[in-house]
Amino acid sequence: MKKVEKYGLFELRIQGAEDFSATFSQDGESIEIKGFQINERETAVRFMPRRKGVWHYRAGDLQGEFLCVPNTGKNHGPVERNGYHFRYADGSAYFPIGTTCYAWIHQTPELITQTLESLENSPFNKIRMLVFPKDMPYNKNDPDLYPFLKKDDGTWDVSRPDFAFWRHLESGIEKLGELGIEADLILFHPYDRWGFSKLTHEESLIYLEYCIRRLSAYRNIWWSLANEYELVTSKTLDNWMDIGEKISKEDIYGHPISVHNIMNVFPKTDWLTHCSIQNSEVKRVIQWRKEYELPVIIDECGYEGNIEFDWGNLSGFELIHRAWTTVACGGYITHGETFFREDEVLWWAKGGKLYGESVARFAFLKEIQYEIGELTPIGGRIDVDFENSPIPSENPVIAAIANAVLNMPEWERKLFLLRMQPAVSSNENRRLHYLGRTCPAFQEIMLPENGVYRIEVLDIWEMTRTAACEGVSGKIKVPLPGKEGIVILVTRIAGESLN
Amino acid sequence: MKKVEKYGLFELRIQGAEDFSATFSQDGESIEIKGFQINERETAVRFMPRRKGVWHYRAGDLQGEFLCVPNTGKNHGPVERNGYHFRYADGSAYFPIGTTCYAWIHQTPELITQTLESLENSPFNKIRMLVFPKDMPYNKNDPDLYPFLKKDDGTWDVSRPDFAFWRHLESGIEKLGELGIEADLILFHPYDRWGFSKLTHEESLIYLEYCIRRLSAYRNIWWSLANEYELVTSKTLDNWMDIGEKISKEDIYGHPISVHNIMNVFPKTDWLTHCSIQNSEVKRVIQWRKEYELPVIIDECGYEGNIEFDWGNLSGFELIHRAWTTVACGGYITHGETFFREDEVLWWAKGGKLYGESVARFAFLKEIQYEIGELTPIGGRIDVDFENSPIPSENPVIAAIANAVLNMPEWERKLFLLRMQPAVSSNENRRLHYLGRTCPAFQEIMLPENGVYRIEVLDIWEMTRTAACEGVSGKIKVPLPGKEGIVILVTRIAGESLN
Repeated sequence: MKKVEKYGLFELRIQGAEDFSATFSQDGESIEIKGFQINERETAVRFMPRRKGVWHYRAGDLQGEFLCVPNTGKNHGPVERNGYHFRYADGSAYFPIGTTCYAWIHQTPELITQTLESLENSPFNKIRMLVFPKDMPYNKNDPDLYPFLKKDDGTWDVSRPDFAFWRHLESGIEKLGELGIEADLILFHPYDRWGFSKLTHEESLIYLEYCIRRLSAYRNIWWSLANEYELVTSKTLDNWMDIGEKISKEDIYGHPISVHNIMNVFPKTDWLTHCSIQNSEVKRVIQWRKEYELPVIIDECGYEGNIEFDWGNLSGFELIHRAWTTVACGGYITHGETFFREDEVLWWAKGGKLYGESVARFAFLKEIQYEIGELTPIGGRIDVDFENSPIPSENPVIAAIANAVLNMPEWERKLFLLRMQPAVSSNENRRLHYLGRTCPAFQEIMLPENGVYRIEVLDIWEMTRTAACEGVSGKIKVPLPGKEGIVILVTRIAGESLN
Repeated sequence: MKKVEKYGLFELRIQGAEDFSATFSQDGESIEIKGFQINERETAVRFMPRRKGVWHYRAGDLQGEFLCVPNTGKNHGPVERNGYHFRYADGSAYFPIGTTCYAWIHQTPELITQTLESLENSPFNKIRMLVFPKDMPYNKNDPDLYPFLKKDDGTWDVSRPDFAFWRHLESGIEKLGELGIEADLILFHPYDRWGFSKLTHEESLIYLEYCIRRLSAYRNIWWSLANEYELVTSKTLDNWMDIGEKISKEDIYGHPISVHNIMNVFPKTDWLTHCSIQNSEVKRVIQWRKEYELPVIIDECGYEGNIEFDWGNLSGFELIHRAWTTVACGGYITHGETFFREDEVLWWAKGGKLYGESVARFAFLKEIQYEIGELTPIGGRIDVDFENSPIPSENPVIAAIANAVLNMPEWERKLFLLRMQPAVSSNENRRLHYLGRTCPAFQEIMLPENGVYRIEVLDIWEMTRTAACEGVSGKIKVPLPGKEGIVILVTRIAGESLN
């Protein structure tokens, strides 16, 4: 009997059928899967089994079975939302440390190979990538393949996929899967000179249908409806809602779904699995967590590099500083790199090689994240609800400050409270306090009295981890190096939880 | 005949008189100056002549004359407001590069001497300092002298100055004057365990009267009504208005007057000569300039140091970065230093020695400021008035971005526009563009076509100045080092103004 790993891909093909579908069943449960045209002659049905054992299938007169065997190696199944975090379907830990190579599949075979080598040697376990080619500064080359064939009038015929393109795309997704990297696939984007950003809503739904039928059985697929959705001006908010609902309904595996913004975070809906946010004010993660009650990924906070655009010329320190701030606020962040090159091969668009200083630091961050686990942000230093609470008045200085804050114009108050918000989060066994760009020579912290704790000091740039205090509890003065990029990491040895 | 330099201090004393005043006249102009008790036996009148030649004075039966001779050396007269900038009364340039030593006069003679030596070897030409002693972390020592004697009930008797204190204070002001340093004298503040922050309004006015009569003839006096005025909870806004009006009316020399805030910049009034602001969002200088139509000094944006408080643990780079940002937005900024020391002698409070890395960089900034002159900020990258204008729609991408910005909640829009605001300013002969923490490897700039210009690249940390382009005009691609802290400085050689 044919064997397929749990979370692997089983494919069935039939010649010439239209509107072909197949039913997969095990232990009385049946799942109907719709097919798609995979080449000029054949229709295919793809299925990702999520339970071990024998699966039976039937498609018209055709029937058969296969044996679903345990998942192995880097196959932990699709990533699922788990509260404010993620995990693999098999229960393994998954903390997204993504990178950005929008148009890597639209490059030459040599460059694609180099990109995959770079990814293999990187810490990244998610990649933001486009289906459609990209037209933007440093992105002026035409791809070899396009998703659709053209009509006689020169416009795209979304009902006629270019099979070579789709095979090329999914081969990229497969290779990412082998590397343990999630393909965060961006379905629409505005950087376009070919007309893909101007598909009608009807055309868009036909294209989507094909994407879902062809790609959703890949365990490492994530759906990103758009990059900078506000700039895809051919689509209304209703269109986006339609698209999100369609994917949510038709992708039976429930892959993560998000929408990336330029200015305004996509509204809360029932099909969003997480926030995919462009914003450099990464401490706002705490606010978005509250607002959306979902995991928050800062998918764009600026890129390490030296190009002329401010979104692409952060120092390596600034990027990794934003990354630690995000993580210490209970969120996740995505890397990107934009170093100027005469040949215009910039990682963020085309892949190739990584040159930045932050990559190694992302590996250090990832190591810590996988060690310490999921984090929940701890309340701010100023806990007064200035919108709704009376001002505390016992301590006259505090009362005067609170009054002064209350008297600020709303936007200044919000900005002030954001600045004052410390980047501290915890779980039962850990507390992580990222000190950001502040440079204290020491910091007093409060630990529970009824426990025993270890304190380590991490340097996010030097990637060092130094024991500071062992077997302590209560009020502790932690000696610090007095420089930027320092983390105080508390570990519970015994006693009271750090939550 | 006795000689007094223009802007020097002429003092007249008489024994035992109360409510003593003197009239100084020259060429038909008469100025009446009120006296103050200077010691147990004598009343004094102090006068700063602002015109050369013979001055006659008369005080009751007493009369005489003195010759006002030209000012020399570091004596350029009092600093005056000049639009959005300052200058000395004799027309010489004055660009404030201040520092902060709140309680330096309340320290031991040895420490005071060391502070003055440090100041002499520093670039600073203004110092923020308190009249009253200071009670705060790292500021726990009692001074030897207090401004007033006490009543029998142990409260301060503001009508009985401690002459030794005032002689001590003004000796500090005199020494600063010899060094060419303005004494930005803070009249009230909240960090108090002795009761000075709780004087009644009536008592405050008596104290002020004495300050004005005794100190206003010093050319290097500035009046700062308060440090963190919102925290001096014994005073209402009406009280502050009274105080400001009193100084403005009674200080015949028109020394600069400001009020330093903790959260909310002091409201616009007709007696403020400039804004004295505590805020770390230094790009807001552009907004405050518009709002107040006055010079803006960021008198507190955080201090270089490593203490436990976030306002006192900036890296040297962060502080000088804020300083250049401020200057490139048409404002001025004040230095401060808070490095932890076991002996609790921190520069920001007590003076002593300077340890930081930013001081040398402030000297570099000052050198450039005095070379290039007064700067006016140039409009932002996004010039749309989102509150009031229709959205431009010719370029669909711009229109989509503008719409997305319009759809942001007000506070996010304000924050976004602040982030997007470049730090660029100019005068007829210069344009200064500070690139902040961005790291471009090049930048395209537009110069007038009808002129010839030189472009230099400054590194604010390395304090270097490198010729980049000579004899250019129009659109120029400036090669840059791709690191933080870079300034593009354009100088007009001939032709069209850079304003």
